[in-house]
Amino acid sequence: MDIEAPAIILVRPQLGMNIGMAARAMGNFALDRLRLVEPRDGWPNPEAGPPASGADHVLETVTVHGSVAGALADCQLTFATTVRPRDMAKPVVTPKQAAALIREAAAQGLKAGILFGPERSGLTADDLAPVQTIITCPVNPGFGSLNLAQAVLLVGYEWFQSSDPEAAPARTHQPAPHGEVAGLIAHLEAELEEAGYFHVPDRTPATRRTLAQMLSRPQFSAEEVRTLRGVIRALAEGPKRKARGAP
Amino acid sequence: MDIEAPAIILVRPQLGMNIGMAARAMGNFALDRLRLVEPRDGWPNPEAGPPASGADHVLETVTVHGSVAGALADCQLTFATTVRPRDMAKPVVTPKQAAALIREAAAQGLKAGILFGPERSGLTADDLAPVQTIITCPVNPGFGSLNLAQAVLLVGYEWFQSSDPEAAPARTHQPAPHGEVAGLIAHLEAELEEAGYFHVPDRTPATRRTLAQMLSRPQFSAEEVRTLRGVIRALAEGPKRKARGAP
Repeated sequence: MDIEAPAIILVRPQLGMNIGMAARAMGNFALDRLRLVEPRDGWPNPEAGPPASGADHVLETVTVHGSVAGALADCQLTFATTVRPRDMAKPVVTPKQAAALIREAAAQGLKAGILFGPERSGLTADDLAPVQTIITCPVNPGFGSLNLAQAVLLVGYEWFQSSDPEAAPARTHQPAPHGEVAGLIAHLEAELEEAGYFHVPDRTPATRRTLAQMLSRPQFSAEEVRTLRGVIRALAEGPKRKARGAP
Repeated sequence: MDIEAPAIILVRPQLGMNIGMAARAMGNFALDRLRLVEPRDGWPNPEAGPPASGADHVLETVTVHGSVAGALADCQLTFATTVRPRDMAKPVVTPKQAAALIREAAAQGLKAGILFGPERSGLTADDLAPVQTIITCPVNPGFGSLNLAQAVLLVGYEWFQSSDPEAAPARTHQPAPHGEVAGLIAHLEAELEEAGYFHVPDRTPATRRTLAQMLSRPQFSAEEVRTLRGVIRALAEGPKRKARGAP
């Protein structure tokens, strides 16, 4: 079976040159699925061509997405690269560990997507919330800035290195694609809204991130997602039924 | 004893920009000895500054040499990077293997130097002749061109990785003790019972196991457990409040 390489997802990239350099780094390491979320200068961008140095097959199949959730929709495994892990309730792995995780999952037919943030600012807390696992490159703590294409290069390098055909142990658990998890998050938020849970407006964005994070990290299976939606429905409707039946 | 990092030796580099980007890659991975052999535009070169992105300590200590032999003069271990090993009677290693060899030798006080060729043409047979070992990065055979700074980056990355076999970043997430998770499970079950969720008695034990599993596997933190209990409370009580307030 063909192993599917992870999708490389550039979130709000600014310079076409950097998109081209990222495509070249992908070509070097046999990655070919490039996705852009809200590229600043639109797409296609002629400035990406020359720095891609012949990685035309990568540029020609780029897909553009309106949101991080959209770019991750078909991915069961979701990663984001950050320079330094902030205090986040997520596992943090090296590019090498991520490559091993992705390859093992890909052997079972699962898809992975890896987010890379904009050049200067990096990914926001909202971008990171729905992601299961953080990738941080071990770099000199006194001088930590990797540029966008370099970060793609290191992740690609470890992906290519990991192509060791040793058999991975069978995975008993099949995570749902992110689209189904996003549906679960939206369902819970709608019911909580209805129940008056978001009563302190200042804290609402942080609370929503926490919820997105808690529901994304566990890699729930499609069946578990259905069970959780049933639980939410029961909790939200059950007492109503009771209230209707009350004298 | 301090381990001495290998000297990075750029042979006849053409663009100041690439020298700067190589310096930046060195800074990322704690390499600080940069040597130039016959740089095309002389040295210092103001075009190297901006792309170095703050790796000034690397640029300020550059030494310039008239020949490859001169740049390698103090090195007991000599390496050269090539895209594809030609037919040469030399051992060929990966960046990772080179890093291990250099670190082992450095622990004995030996010095190493690594040659990188000019941007377009690469190293000549004459450049390679005096070198002991060839480093070749494993890249996609259908698309093999790494640029100069990328080659330095990969070699630096493996050097830095080899410094600490346990270079895995610290885990930021602290799972709650099981007692708290058990309290969460009991709370959810009680509310679901109340809501009439367990309406098929035969399936109840299996459903309870599924719920326990889903809430245990994610290793929720104590704070996340509290948030989830708040969510359960809100879902279970919210509509009641609404029902009470209804006309």
